[in-house]
Amino acid sequence: MTNMDKLYDSVAKNGPVCVGLDTEISYLPETDTALTAGENIVAFNRRLIDATKGVAGCYKVQIAYYESLGMDGMLAYQQTLKMARASGLPVIADIKRGDIAKTAEMYAKAHFTGDFEADIVTLAPYMGLDSIVPYLPYCKDQGKGVFVLCRTSNPGRMDFEYQTLSDGRTVYTMVGDALTKLGADYMGERGYSSVGLVIGGTTGEEAAEIRDRYKNTFFLIPGYGAQGGKACDIALYMNKGNGGVVNSSRGILMAWKKQPGVAFDEAAYNECVRMREDIQSECNKL
Amino acid sequence: MTNMDKLYDSVAKNGPVCVGLDTEISYLPETDTALTAGENIVAFNRRLIDATKGVAGCYKVQIAYYESLGMDGMLAYQQTLKMARASGLPVIADIKRGDIAKTAEMYAKAHFTGDFEADIVTLAPYMGLDSIVPYLPYCKDQGKGVFVLCRTSNPGRMDFEYQTLSDGRTVYTMVGDALTKLGADYMGERGYSSVGLVIGGTTGEEAAEIRDRYKNTFFLIPGYGAQGGKACDIALYMNKGNGGVVNSSRGILMAWKKQPGVAFDEAAYNECVRMREDIQSECNKL
Repeated sequence: MTNMDKLYDSVAKNGPVCVGLDTEISYLPETDTALTAGENIVAFNRRLIDATKGVAGCYKVQIAYYESLGMDGMLAYQQTLKMARASGLPVIADIKRGDIAKTAEMYAKAHFTGDFEADIVTLAPYMGLDSIVPYLPYCKDQGKGVFVLCRTSNPGRMDFEYQTLSDGRTVYTMVGDALTKLGADYMGERGYSSVGLVIGGTTGEEAAEIRDRYKNTFFLIPGYGAQGGKACDIALYMNKGNGGVVNSSRGILMAWKKQPGVAFDEAAYNECVRMREDIQSECNKL
Repeated sequence: MTNMDKLYDSVAKNGPVCVGLDTEISYLPETDTALTAGENIVAFNRRLIDATKGVAGCYKVQIAYYESLGMDGMLAYQQTLKMARASGLPVIADIKRGDIAKTAEMYAKAHFTGDFEADIVTLAPYMGLDSIVPYLPYCKDQGKGVFVLCRTSNPGRMDFEYQTLSDGRTVYTMVGDALTKLGADYMGERGYSSVGLVIGGTTGEEAAEIRDRYKNTFFLIPGYGAQGGKACDIALYMNKGNGGVVNSSRGILMAWKKQPGVAFDEAAYNECVRMREDIQSECNKL
């Protein structure tokens, strides 16, 4: 069983909320001055994971937040991955690495084994398919998975991703087509490839076309909440409530700010439940 | 004076060789079993930097090799950056990060300050200009620089970078045009922007057009040697011997294998000198 299969089963059981552990020290309601920034973040993440593991489909750890704290942050990253994986839910390392040949092999080793091992990683496609291929032996042999950037949720997606090619396709469609073709040899038991795509949920306009075009592809869907993605749009990118996970980071990590008197972990739990119901109710309407 | 200015001056003084510290443990002629892999690599890098600092234009540290060793590797990365910067030459962190908004701010903080501070970083453009903009305040305020992927040296560059848009440009030209426009506000004293481009040196066919189109853009040129890039092609991407640095990693790190009886650091020095002469003699022919 692949990690993408496990993700499917987890979404079926717990719902499609991907809890984004993009934890910055300023998001914490209080800090212990006897601890480093990284140690404070680990303590926060521990309670957050413990509170949400019954209502989350998976965790996503954004490495940039940890890199920004140097060695202290990298240790916090290692420990956060370990805690998140101990929950039993699939853990996505949001690393967006993209490099070639021997260098890509090194990244694959870095994030699929050892101190920074994750179940699934995010990748960037710009340099071409030889920047993705070195991760595939880990998909084949250990069930690992990748989500490759395709159509993202940021305003800057218009700059390059949305440009039109001479054959009429957009750049993001060219990327999506090539990646799904590559992923066809890595199908799991639940009907989804170990090569998934990052498809932003900030607009519903192209949703039907994208979902139809990439039937056997699991989507990592950012953009809910803070970035303006609405549940009614996001539901269109799912396959009857599965086939995708919907990330929320600040909305969950800082839920305590909108729930006065409620502890941060309980507030995070409440927000996961609210978000899950928001998305599932829209999926049920389709 | 910006770091791109410093790079220009360094190339003028020492030549255009960029020593790539993509150090893997298997590249070392011998290891000390009392030390960790990371510690062995740091000891190797120390001697290599010391031997080459008079004949190198800059250093480039490929973070993937260090990430692959987990926490031990991240410490080696930190120490390697520190040693390389202590040489007085500009140091490029080859991180190829590409993410948006707050996350990009975190990466910029991670690699322009603190434990992992470098002078210049490499970036990936896929997500759009808002994945580049968060690095620019560091260019403005501290003279930092970026090299953004444009036309790379790997075979997979044909997959996406070389595809043709409806306006007739290639994807890589669209990216190069947008980045050089963005970089126009970040000009240094030597006539080059703090926003540079990665332009692979594996083919000379488009060289004249690219060099002419991006006159004020410094190029990081991979692909020499192992990847098949010839000095006669690479010279075409330079501007009269400057305006670019030419990376070699394995060719320098493992030069000792082709120079029997010569210590690895001396062999690396010899290879830097040979490579510099190879490139400069071709530049002089133009």
